Amino acid sequence: MSLLVTGSIGIDTVTTPFGTSENCIGGSAVYFSMAASFLTPVRFLGVVGDDCPFDLHEVFQGRDVDLAGLEVRKGSKTFRWCGSYAGAMNDANTDAVELNVLAEAPPAVPDAFQDSQYVFLANTHPALQMQLLEQLKSPRFVVADTMNLWIENERDALVALLGKIDALVLNEGEARMFTGQENLVAAAKEIVKLGLEFVVVKKGEHGTLLITKDNQCCVLPAYPTDAVKDPTGAGDSFAGGMMGYLASVNAQPNDIDQLRKALAHGTAVASLVIEDFSLNRWSNAARADIDNRLAELKNIIQF
Amino acid sequence: MSLLVTGSIGIDTVTTPFGTSENCIGGSAVYFSMAASFLTPVRFLGVVGDDCPFDLHEVFQGRDVDLAGLEVRKGSKTFRWCGSYAGAMNDANTDAVELNVLAEAPPAVPDAFQDSQYVFLANTHPALQMQLLEQLKSPRFVVADTMNLWIENERDALVALLGKIDALVLNEGEARMFTGQENLVAAAKEIVKLGLEFVVVKKGEHGTLLITKDNQCCVLPAYPTDAVKDPTGAGDSFAGGMMGYLASVNAQPNDIDQLRKALAHGTAVASLVIEDFSLNRWSNAARADIDNRLAELKNIIQF
Repeated sequence: MSLLVTGSIGIDTVTTPFGTSENCIGGSAVYFSMAASFLTPVRFLGVVGDDCPFDLHEVFQGRDVDLAGLEVRKGSKTFRWCGSYAGAMNDANTDAVELNVLAEAPPAVPDAFQDSQYVFLANTHPALQMQLLEQLKSPRFVVADTMNLWIENERDALVALLGKIDALVLNEGEARMFTGQENLVAAAKEIVKLGLEFVVVKKGEHGTLLITKDNQCCVLPAYPTDAVKDPTGAGDSFAGGMMGYLASVNAQPNDIDQLRKALAHGTAVASLVIEDFSLNRWSNAARADIDNRLAELKNIIQF
Repeated sequence: MSLLVTGSIGIDTVTTPFGTSENCIGGSAVYFSMAASFLTPVRFLGVVGDDCPFDLHEVFQGRDVDLAGLEVRKGSKTFRWCGSYAGAMNDANTDAVELNVLAEAPPAVPDAFQDSQYVFLANTHPALQMQLLEQLKSPRFVVADTMNLWIENERDALVALLGKIDALVLNEGEARMFTGQENLVAAAKEIVKLGLEFVVVKKGEHGTLLITKDNQCCVLPAYPTDAVKDPTGAGDSFAGGMMGYLASVNAQPNDIDQLRKALAHGTAVASLVIEDFSLNRWSNAARADIDNRLAELKNIIQF
């Protein structure tokens, strides 16, 4: 099954203790698509300005990513993000951000994408996520990401969206902020009650927690590594691995066994992307790298 | 194989968001012994003052805990700890502490305990840990705990101890402090090089990480629960479950398969003790509760 993603395309400048990568390609839809494309065909929906220095067709060359939903908007400027990481690199500091084209109207869903069944709405204003969702004919498995900004300022729109989709992925700080629950299991249980099939809480170096509406639970640690160079895109790559796997096996949102495997695929993919800046880790990677990492992860947690 | 533990016996007053437990029994050796006793016979070495309101024989009634190493010291006062937890309850705040008898000479190892093979040196001054170790004839599997105070102020004594034992357990903040490495895998790899077979990093609600001197790795998440009432003793109970299992199967310190199972037993035991204040959770618990928790944990992480 093909998988639609809508999210950002960015010009990133990222500084970590391992160096700085200036004006490199980033953005949620880009990281997601690259990760998911190892597992399933991807339909890409996003918008850049006419200043964009990257040719996305080149970026995704050789990958099964359909760029029919890529809009290059005349007179607009591409989204830019300048961020840095320190210490354990669990949290990004945003040093500068220019929303540019992301503050304008979202791209239209092309006719050829309107029958998409698996959908990932990367983080943006929940009203925009809803607007994009409404352009689809009959999606059967929709997952969204969100962020602290919308949890604080657009809670009603976010809650309305949650009533229309199957699952939410968010990080641990956001789960706590959303619910006021410090305990993450309690927080996830509260969020899932807002009409979802399941919630995934991303905990960075500590892994992920998935809770279903029936209180079934999957937990995985992150792949243990000291080879982290740049965590940018880890969350979107995780989501790409997770959704890519689910679409590849035509999974239902309530199939707990497939959700467990999806969580593992997301974990494996995320553990790879952070080993280098931007998309660099993918230049020589193949599906076998993901499978090897899955096998390692399985070995590391078995008892 | 029987297992020797030496550590504290305390009169604790603990406050969490779920209430306050005043003057209840606590201490590292107590939590450790209770946990380990479900898995293997325990030899208990510790000292209280003659003011101690608890009869340890009563506390451990029906458990296979040999109290031949319990000293009630005349004219001394029992260790007291007053602590509290807030938020996600990952870190204890020490509100008041009276070392009392713990600041005096340690208890002597009784003749009957000197042939102990499996040994856990709960957190105390590393010079005292060394002194206790030197009283044993030929221990074959010795693990110690430590804390920030000794890492900061008694590094030489601690490093000397690590050259004489098989493994160290410490929490994530301590591992970072010890090495200056923010990445926990890097930190654990650095610590294990100080002459150890393996290191276990405890991450509270995020689980545990074990690294061997050959860079083999086991990682387990904590059992996901929103039923946490009091995390006091979780780390010592984890160690009790881990060492209790290792002693019960007569494991070697370099047996990675047994270390994986030991980590799981520690995780299961710790997940139980935190469900109530002090030792209350154990009043009606049996080995079957630990086995059930192990099975649940296995299911939750499988993919």
